[in-house]
Amino acid sequence: MTDRQNEKNDLGFALIDSGRSGRTGYPEVVYCMGKTIEQCEAIITRMREQAIPVLGTRAPAELAERVRGSFPEAVYDGIARTLTIGSIDPQGTGLVMVVAAGTSDLPVAQEALRCAEFFGSRAELITDVGIAGIHRLFQRIEDIRRANVVIAAAGMEGALAGVIAGLVSVPVIALPTSVGYGAAFGGIAALLGMLNCCAPGVSVVNIDNGFGAAYQANLINQAACGKTGKR
Amino acid sequence: MTDRQNEKNDLGFALIDSGRSGRTGYPEVVYCMGKTIEQCEAIITRMREQAIPVLGTRAPAELAERVRGSFPEAVYDGIARTLTIGSIDPQGTGLVMVVAAGTSDLPVAQEALRCAEFFGSRAELITDVGIAGIHRLFQRIEDIRRANVVIAAAGMEGALAGVIAGLVSVPVIALPTSVGYGAAFGGIAALLGMLNCCAPGVSVVNIDNGFGAAYQANLINQAACGKTGKR
Amino acid sequence: MTDRQNEKNDLGFALIDSGRSGRTGYPEVVYCMGKTIEQCEAIITRMREQAIPVLGTRAPAELAERVRGSFPEAVYDGIARTLTIGSIDPQGTGLVMVVAAGTSDLPVAQEALRCAEFFGSRAELITDVGIAGIHRLFQRIEDIRRANVVIAAAGMEGALAGVIAGLVSVPVIALPTSVGYGAAFGGIAALLGMLNCCAPGVSVVNIDNGFGAAYQANLINQAACGKTGKR
Amino acid sequence: MTDRQNEKNDLGFALIDSGRSGRTGYPEVVYCMGKTIEQCEAIITRMREQAIPVLGTRAPAELAERVRGSFPEAVYDGIARTLTIGSIDPQGTGLVMVVAAGTSDLPVAQEALRCAEFFGSRAELITDVGIAGIHRLFQRIEDIRRANVVIAAAGMEGALAGVIAGLVSVPVIALPTSVGYGAAFGGIAALLGMLNCCAPGVSVVNIDNGFGAAYQANLINQAACGKTGKR
Amino acid sequence: MTDRQNEKNDLGFALIDSGRSGRTGYPEVVYCMGKTIEQCEAIITRMREQAIPVLGTRAPAELAERVRGSFPEAVYDGIARTLTIGSIDPQGTGLVMVVAAGTSDLPVAQEALRCAEFFGSRAELITDVGIAGIHRLFQRIEDIRRANVVIAAAGMEGALAGVIAGLVSVPVIALPTSVGYGAAFGGIAALLGMLNCCAPGVSVVNIDNGFGAAYQANLINQAACGKTGKR
Amino acid sequence: MTDRQNEKNDLGFALIDSGRSGRTGYPEVVYCMGKTIEQCEAIITRMREQAIPVLGTRAPAELAERVRGSFPEAVYDGIARTLTIGSIDPQGTGLVMVVAAGTSDLPVAQEALRCAEFFGSRAELITDVGIAGIHRLFQRIEDIRRANVVIAAAGMEGALAGVIAGLVSVPVIALPTSVGYGAAFGGIAALLGMLNCCAPGVSVVNIDNGFGAAYQANLINQAACGKTGKR
Amino acid sequence: MTDRQNEKNDLGFALIDSGRSGRTGYPEVVYCMGKTIEQCEAIITRMREQAIPVLGTRAPAELAERVRGSFPEAVYDGIARTLTIGSIDPQGTGLVMVVAAGTSDLPVAQEALRCAEFFGSRAELITDVGIAGIHRLFQRIEDIRRANVVIAAAGMEGALAGVIAGLVSVPVIALPTSVGYGAAFGGIAALLGMLNCCAPGVSVVNIDNGFGAAYQANLINQAACGKTGKR
Amino acid sequence: MTDRQNEKNDLGFALIDSGRSGRTGYPEVVYCMGKTIEQCEAIITRMREQAIPVLGTRAPAELAERVRGSFPEAVYDGIARTLTIGSIDPQGTGLVMVVAAGTSDLPVAQEALRCAEFFGSRAELITDVGIAGIHRLFQRIEDIRRANVVIAAAGMEGALAGVIAGLVSVPVIALPTSVGYGAAFGGIAALLGMLNCCAPGVSVVNIDNGFGAAYQANLINQAACGKTGKR
Repeated sequence: MTDRQNEKNDLGFALIDSGRSGRTGYPEVVYCMGKTIEQCEAIITRMREQAIPVLGTRAPAELAERVRGSFPEAVYDGIARTLTIGSIDPQGTGLVMVVAAGTSDLPVAQEALRCAEFFGSRAELITDVGIAGIHRLFQRIEDIRRANVVIAAAGMEGALAGVIAGLVSVPVIALPTSVGYGAAFGGIAALLGMLNCCAPGVSVVNIDNGFGAAYQANLINQAACGKTGKR
Repeated sequence: MTDRQNEKNDLGFALIDSGRSGRTGYPEVVYCMGKTIEQCEAIITRMREQAIPVLGTRAPAELAERVRGSFPEAVYDGIARTLTIGSIDPQGTGLVMVVAAGTSDLPVAQEALRCAEFFGSRAELITDVGIAGIHRLFQRIEDIRRANVVIAAAGMEGALAGVIAGLVSVPVIALPTSVGYGAAFGGIAALLGMLNCCAPGVSVVNIDNGFGAAYQANLINQAACGKTGKR
Repeated sequence: MTDRQNEKNDLGFALIDSGRSGRTGYPEVVYCMGKTIEQCEAIITRMREQAIPVLGTRAPAELAERVRGSFPEAVYDGIARTLTIGSIDPQGTGLVMVVAAGTSDLPVAQEALRCAEFFGSRAELITDVGIAGIHRLFQRIEDIRRANVVIAAAGMEGALAGVIAGLVSVPVIALPTSVGYGAAFGGIAALLGMLNCCAPGVSVVNIDNGFGAAYQANLINQAACGKTGKR
Repeated sequence: MTDRQNEKNDLGFALIDSGRSGRTGYPEVVYCMGKTIEQCEAIITRMREQAIPVLGTRAPAELAERVRGSFPEAVYDGIARTLTIGSIDPQGTGLVMVVAAGTSDLPVAQEALRCAEFFGSRAELITDVGIAGIHRLFQRIEDIRRANVVIAAAGMEGALAGVIAGLVSVPVIALPTSVGYGAAFGGIAALLGMLNCCAPGVSVVNIDNGFGAAYQANLINQAACGKTGKR
Repeated sequence: MTDRQNEKNDLGFALIDSGRSGRTGYPEVVYCMGKTIEQCEAIITRMREQAIPVLGTRAPAELAERVRGSFPEAVYDGIARTLTIGSIDPQGTGLVMVVAAGTSDLPVAQEALRCAEFFGSRAELITDVGIAGIHRLFQRIEDIRRANVVIAAAGMEGALAGVIAGLVSVPVIALPTSVGYGAAFGGIAALLGMLNCCAPGVSVVNIDNGFGAAYQANLINQAACGKTGKR
Repeated sequence: MTDRQNEKNDLGFALIDSGRSGRTGYPEVVYCMGKTIEQCEAIITRMREQAIPVLGTRAPAELAERVRGSFPEAVYDGIARTLTIGSIDPQGTGLVMVVAAGTSDLPVAQEALRCAEFFGSRAELITDVGIAGIHRLFQRIEDIRRANVVIAAAGMEGALAGVIAGLVSVPVIALPTSVGYGAAFGGIAALLGMLNCCAPGVSVVNIDNGFGAAYQANLINQAACGKTGKR
Repeated sequence: MTDRQNEKNDLGFALIDSGRSGRTGYPEVVYCMGKTIEQCEAIITRMREQAIPVLGTRAPAELAERVRGSFPEAVYDGIARTLTIGSIDPQGTGLVMVVAAGTSDLPVAQEALRCAEFFGSRAELITDVGIAGIHRLFQRIEDIRRANVVIAAAGMEGALAGVIAGLVSVPVIALPTSVGYGAAFGGIAALLGMLNCCAPGVSVVNIDNGFGAAYQANLINQAACGKTGKR
Repeated sequence: MTDRQNEKNDLGFALIDSGRSGRTGYPEVVYCMGKTIEQCEAIITRMREQAIPVLGTRAPAELAERVRGSFPEAVYDGIARTLTIGSIDPQGTGLVMVVAAGTSDLPVAQEALRCAEFFGSRAELITDVGIAGIHRLFQRIEDIRRANVVIAAAGMEGALAGVIAGLVSVPVIALPTSVGYGAAFGGIAALLGMLNCCAPGVSVVNIDNGFGAAYQANLINQAACGKTGKR
């Protein structure tokens, strides 16, 4: 990387990893929590100067407003708290299916949905098919089987991921949410449930990490679409 | 209680609660772990002198052998590690159904089975119907629905209890087992999963506590059989 | 289930499990935490359109006000935070007794009380009989023995459940509360105490889960009343 | 499933899920821990009667010996503790790369290697490239980039997965191992490190779960090879 | 302390705190776990050379045998695993009462008994009066009220300490034991229960620390006997 | 207890344990956290009607104001958050010494001070003598040695209790505080440190439980003063 | 220490350890969290009366304003939340290098920077070189190698410390931050990762303890500069 | 690194990091736990072929015997479980002082001692100066002050590190040990105590990590001796 390039990337409080696209296929993402509005705005501006598509996660509404002042094409989803400017070109029409156990899991599941779309996947969301009424899941199972990869978002005991994995032939990304109370321990119960899943074909991301689930799911979907695979 | 009675009950290292039957409907049970073979034997002998039916749990094979020397009618189940002499008179034919997620859960599930029988319930055991192949559970669901109460024994993510509770109209006693490894944490993952169960109708006992699950299930079954209920 | 029916149940963010009553004997309940006021209101409205009795738990006062605008017959208990429209027809007069260790446990205990009533049980509440002054419990023990099932709500060390279980002949549902501080760890101490209860006849629900305790207790009470049991 | 078929699958203590291949593309696997030698042998025999390829994980050497008596073609890897009879037909030549941080991680990494091969993937293993001497990883990075998916096995702080994910454009399955002592807490430190990985493209399986990592990696590899993907 | 004295105390691997008696009223105690037999024997010998009364805790039987070779007056209690040579002169006849919930708590409770005696207190032990059959406790409550201080030893939910504290007017030292399984977590449940005790007048020592409970109880008893108090 | 008496004690939401003084020597205390202002006020009023001295802990300032409206003699300590009306008659002049490691521990330490005084002990407070500058402790050690019992309040690593216990000949009540951050885990580090104290003569109360420490210390002090001891 | 001196140091709620400089080479520091504004101000004033250089950590802006009223030379860093009046004389020009993994780690890293400067070290800060884009670290490695000691601040999986330790020949002080969410558990994941670091040359301080890292780093730097070492 | 060199380093199961000395100043160390005797022996042999000084930690006696067959100059310390062949040339005479709280901490402390010596430091060990008898520490404090860095090894509450840090002007490396029982949680209590140390100048290594403490201490000592510092 040239010094010139480095200079463009260095904001003092942040160092944009503009080479990430070359190394990993996708640009850096702006995780807004723990950064000030001003820092986020500055990073986004600098990325746009280099024409990098922007995805901000955990973005507060106030940031969205300010960014839309400079970049009217910015799109904000208030439930998912995602802020996007542009996106990665889609490749193929393979599907990422996001399945949420309950209504309370929606913010996390929707973050996964928006992120998968940003990275170039076609994505759909099915809500409220938790195992307490498992027939609801069976009614949708053929829809789910259309996907190249499934994201299963659930809090509480997190059993949804395992049940789905026993019914499909594609990878399931388990996405524990902090939904629940008491011995849910802010998502730990769901996380442990998913890690101990007796059905194979499940791997797990951090609690409430809709972005991480979507990133991994998109990589898998692109591979299945023939974008990245080496046969 | 008379002094005389007290004297009979007091072994120095143990004080038999011979009034328990009067208070709670069932005699005291001998939990053998943490007691010496000699202590267990002495307690059992003293109970038999008062004609109290005996249930020993977590009983080592060596104890069984010695007890059968004095009480040839003693029955030992080496998988469940239960030792019984006599039993409580059955009342009605209501069913306690024990459902185990996997083969490794058998010792705990079988402890539940034997204990339920000892306390006077009719009991059956269905094995290896975990959620990884959920059709196996559906094949048996009508059998399960014949019961007045269900004990769902599972380790790992412990999802079986919640799935069953969404399918039946009777109480489910969730029995977490220490089956699993890594983030199963000796049954904690299953325990948390069961406590956070999104389907109502589930209550939980301690990890590997087949006895406790059976005791509670038997109380419920007897109530449903009309033995104890007040209408 | 017909497509037509499905359509009625599907609100996009939620999928009403209108078949639950058929499968489990009781309708779905609206757990309001983690849902917006608007989502709760929409779900309740859709349920009422199908004449399903409504129980909302953890319902904020603001929701109650709005719902009473449309459904003046709605009843809100501000301590229990329960919102009900209609209820399940009572069967028999068997009693669910809710026993609370201290005044601070009241919100959770009262949730249990209201939920048990909603599901068709007769229910009573005894407060402030914790083990620090155990004579208070003994003064009420005959009252407690009138019940078909006991819910024992306690925070801190949660010892109440075990003491009661040693004194009665019916199932005890232990309901740990998050009352306490320091090493109470938001109810973990009570939860562990109840799971490790040395008296048999106790099963446990999640911390602060008054609803879950009541649901299970009602199932047991109905069985004892002869509603559901198979003899 | 016919009754006849069910009968073949039911061993009393186990119920072979012979339909799994149809649902998920791969046969059931025999997890040997917690089962007796006799139970494992009976399950394997029954599976072979139906010509199902067998993979036993956590298989003790004694089981291997006995099984080879009946099935001389059985292959046992004493480090990985895998026992295989037959395997799934390979499809394409896409590569699963298993990367292990240290020598002590070998048993788990090798389990992943053998399982990936069993499921039909080409698989290779690179050992001892932990981050304490990160140049060792860079020397092998081009080898790693040849793969369609990477399994990163590491104990202690588990940082390997994140470093690799920042350098490749394919999914990384993080496989925490119980290697370490003290505050490694039997793999918890590695597990948490991997879940909190700041580089996207990582999902995690249970501690020491080489099988689970391989199963998921194989699904991804097959998708990249064009076996299962829907474009 | 003179250099000469220091030399006597220094064994290289250990430095006897011979001034402890002057500072705290009682000599140092030999905690044998984690020390070799040889180290223990050397420490004991050196203490006896200075005529210090010896209390060894967690002493293996083999050590007792060797020590009795040199010091025939040594006394070993195989249940308590205490080894004593001499003892502190008793002062007054005030009583330390050790109350154990169950038979399995005996080793820990008996360690407390023997240690209290060594330090000069009169001590008694009441066993198997756990709260599952609380009448057993009430039968003995007048005996317990004779004491100046009570040690309440219990595992599982550890509720005994709180119940006693609500019934007596003297300090209760709560002694959690590692008795139990599953969610007893090696004594954590009992420890937490005791720390969260709703009855005042309870303080807690480490899990299985019979010695520590006895030491504290003896200090209190001596104070009550008028040995150490300042009025 | 007569029915009449019971009626006086029963407030519906609370049941005053007016017999506690007879059983344990001290009246019930009002723990205000988790109760409404109204509930606290009603309990206090009812207690005053029976001329019971009142100690309210964790009392909010607003409660103090309201109570002082009815009971002008009420005393409120805003740092300790204690509210008292009357107190127990002092007996003897034995001293409870409260020692606090740092300025941040003051609220908890002062609660201990005020509670000890309420129960009839003479009490003093020494602040900011933590082990980081251990000479400060040595400068005050003779003052500390004047006491019959020491309360050692400390957060962070909680080492103060053990250091003091090695220097005095009276019981030390260790009082962990939630002072600290990060791996202090809200007082867990201090609690564990105190439980594992290598110096004998220490017992521990719950985190931030100044009241509990004072209650126990007062019992010990009274015994040393000859109030309660049986010699 | 004279009584006169003691009097100057004693503020009632705090006891200034004015001898600390003599014992440890550096004056006491004012940790502002958990103290009132008034207490902090009084302590600072008293220290300035004795001409002690002041470092306040976790200082709120309001305190800074008030202190600058009396001491206009006071310097406040709003990101680091440090308040300083004067500083320790620098010795030599050895460098402490603070390296932060991400922008969100800045407040903690900057606290370390300011504290190291206060204690007399030359200090620099490099930001946003986390392992997700490890080339950013390599671009700066020669800068890092100029230092006598490195502070590596990181949240999430905390892998930065280990990677750096494998690349430099000086001590690394690992500084875990509470940056992250879900299974980051407020810095526990980073803390565990750093404690389990497979590269030697790393020691760890408490989560978010920028001050502690700087203090230790400065001691090492001064030693390397020849200030304190004994050769 | 040449391919030739790589070949020499690659044992298949291990990849010797022969460049580590160049990068960090010290050769790689063989951590023997989790490796077979054969693997350890092969690694050591390969290192000796390149004349690298060898330090094996956690080395079993059997390995020592075999290695001494080939390398008679190998030195084994059975308490520390260290195996060394050669050592790093000492530079200067600066001192690393290892201080152990109790006799049971010796194995870990002695590992630290031997490792510090291997890396070229002069090192001494002081044992059994825990805080229960703090005068023992004060008797040795001048000895401790002779060192350039102190390693404080302690289990249980781990308070030793903080007390020392308040008394010396050099860095303290806190080394928690797994000594203790019950709530010591295998060293967690000591670890937390040390991380929360109120005295500055302390950093911490993993539980029982005598090697890591020594490595860090040696780096600091060498800096103080003028070997590595940049002024």
